[in-house]
This record gives sequence, C-alpha cells and structure tokens, in this order.
Amino acid sequence: MRMAELSRESGVPVATIKYYQREGLLPPGELTSPNQARYGPAHVRRLKLVRALLEIGGLSVAAVGEVLTAIDDPATSTHDILGLAQHGLPMAKLEVTADDRAWALSRIEEVARQRDWEVHPGSPVVESLVGVLCALREVGHEWVLEELDCYAEAAASVAERDVTTVARLGATEAVVEGAVVGTVLGDALFAALRRMAHAAVSRRQLSG
Amino acid sequence: MRMAELSRESGVPVATIKYYQREGLLPPGELTSPNQARYGPAHVRRLKLVRALLEIGGLSVAAVGEVLTAIDDPATSTHDILGLAQHGLPMAKLEVTADDRAWALSRIEEVARQRDWEVHPGSPVVESLVGVLCALREVGHEWVLEELDCYAEAAASVAERDVTTVARLGATEAVVEGAVVGTVLGDALFAALRRMAHAAVSRRQLSG
Repeated sequence: MRMAELSRESGVPVATIKYYQREGLLPPGELTSPNQARYGPAHVRRLKLVRALLEIGGLSVAAVGEVLTAIDDPATSTHDILGLAQHGLPMAKLEVTADDRAWALSRIEEVARQRDWEVHPGSPVVESLVGVLCALREVGHEWVLEELDCYAEAAASVAERDVTTVARLGATEAVVEGAVVGTVLGDALFAALRRMAHAAVSRRQLSG
Repeated sequence: MRMAELSRESGVPVATIKYYQREGLLPPGELTSPNQARYGPAHVRRLKLVRALLEIGGLSVAAVGEVLTAIDDPATSTHDILGLAQHGLPMAKLEVTADDRAWALSRIEEVARQRDWEVHPGSPVVESLVGVLCALREVGHEWVLEELDCYAEAAASVAERDVTTVARLGATEAVVEGAVVGTVLGDALFAALRRMAHAAVSRRQLSG
C-alpha cells in the first residue's frame, strides 16, 4: 500500500507517520521509485504499537525507540522488553526527605521479601511507592499502611493473571502492546471497580 | 488561638483561611472584639480536612462544601457522607457511542450482579468504568476483559478491608477524611504494587 492508504488503515495522519519515520520509530517502506514507497501489514501493526506506547502508555518518543529496538533484537527476552516498556511508563513522584525515604524503603522491602519481589531503589516503581508512603505519613494517615499486605496480595493475584493473559497473545509486538495497554488501563479499571465495591461494603457495614 | 496561630498550626496561609471562611468551608471563630476572633482545635482539624479534600482528593470547593454540610448534619449516616465524598472525586471520562455504552453497561451489570453491587448509570464511577471498557475495545485490547472478574474480586477484597479499617477511625470527620485520602492514595499504592508484582511474575514466567 501507499503512504495515503497506510494512514487510512492505521488512523495516523501522514505528517505524523513521516515524523515517526524521521525519529526511527517506523522502518522505511520498500522503494518502488525514487519518490514512492510501498508499505505492508507490518507497518500498520508497528504504527498501532507506536501510538499505543505514546498515547495510552504516555512513553516519550525516546522510550518508544528503546522498546522497539529491543523488540527487533531477537536476543531480547519478552521479560526484558516488558521491563523496558514498564520503565518508560510515567508514575507519580514526590520530593521526600532522606529519613522518610529510608522509612518507606524498609516497609517496601518487608512486603517484597515475603513475596520474592525484587526492590530496585531508583526505579520508577519503587520511587513512586516511596512517594505514596511518604504522602500518607505527611497527611497523618499512616494507618492506611495497615492495609499494605492486603493491597500487595490483591496486586499479586491481579499481576499473575495479567502476565498469564498477556503472554497468551503470542507475538512479541502484541505482548508488549498488550502489557502497556493492560498496565495503564488496568489501573483505571481497578480504581473504578474498587469504588463500586466501596459503595456496596459501606452500604452493608455503615448505612442506617 | 488567634488567626496567625491557626495558620501556623494548620500550615494554611492566612489569606487562604480567609478565603475558606468566605466560601463557608470553615465556621467563624468566637468574637473577642469587633476585629478579633478566637479559634480552637476544631478549626485546626477542619482546616486539615478541607486541605485533604481539595488537594489530595481533588474535590472542587463546591463539593467540599457539600461534604462538610453533610458531616455537620447529625442525621446523615456515615455511608451517605462517604457517598458524597466519593461522588465529588474526579474520575477519567471518555466520549462513547450509544452502542459502545450499552455493551459496556451490560458487562458491568453482569460483574455487579454476581457481587450484589449496585450499578447507577450516570454516576461518576459507572461512567468511568464505561469509559475504560470502551477504550479497551477501541484500541483492540478487549481481551483485557477476560480479567474483569479477577479484577473485581481483588477490588472487593481490598474494598472490604478499606471500609473496615477506615470505620475504626471512629469520629465522623476522621472517617471521611480517611476515606478520601485512602481512596485517592490507595489507587496510587495499588498501581505501584501491581507493577512490582508484574516484574516478579514476568521474571518467573517469561525470562531466559
């Protein structure tokens, strides 16, 4: 197909496709004349992946480039690619004091040790967790941490299912796109379901 | 205490305190002269609640006013106040077609029926859930919905624990503040823990 059709098929404007090409996010088409190139289904798929990473995942163009390089390297394991994709995902951060940070890290390590999770201080996930714990302490609601184990347990069961389901998608590109979409929209899904459950539990326990 | 001390105690600037008073979010102090008023610990507590609702909860000034009116009305049940606080919490929304909306609502009702949850179309929580389901369909990742039950189960167990823990705080003001703080920061807590668990599960299932 020509560029115009590639744009229609993928829903991405021609100018945007050309920008992605300049940034190395989309391989060139097969040249059929000095000014014309032909594109195939692989280009459509790649464009959808780029959009999912940029728009739903909120990754930077540079982070998308890293993920794509990893996907195109046959030596990279799916686990490593998922790690790269996750590393680029935006997470909330908060400035904290060294003391608060040390306190938060020790709580996180305690929870992680029980579940054989690895804690890498400095990684976006750990720093985000440090920020949340410190924010709870700051506003005087440290009691929420009594629930830390319950949250970790629920997160573990959802994550187990997430990875199993996404791994079944088969092709590496589909797995990576699925992981990013599932991670980001999964947050919103869980948040809304938790609120719906809150209403039901509160009605049962506290009304009247 | 005088206004200056109330500001120091609560960490809220004097100009902001005066703004809250004009908006009816803080009751007047006890007048000791035509230009001087005295404030007590109840004012400090109320100020901290107002800040938590506005800054952490992201509620509008009008929504905070509604929550406070409900708290101050002895006839209101804790369940009703929690509902009001939740109703004002910001949630993601998405424009969807009538067909997509009907499809999403039927999936939501199915999940809710199994758990005795009430579905109120038009409420922020249900509309947010409709948006997430439609977004998943839109980007071609409807398969995430295979996990809907697993997510609902995890949300139910966390919510049960949330409400039990927050209800133990006793005083109505503490419960409402706790519910708002716990709802908003609980989202961030779960999101970070889920990512940490993803890394562990992916390492176990997919690496090498």
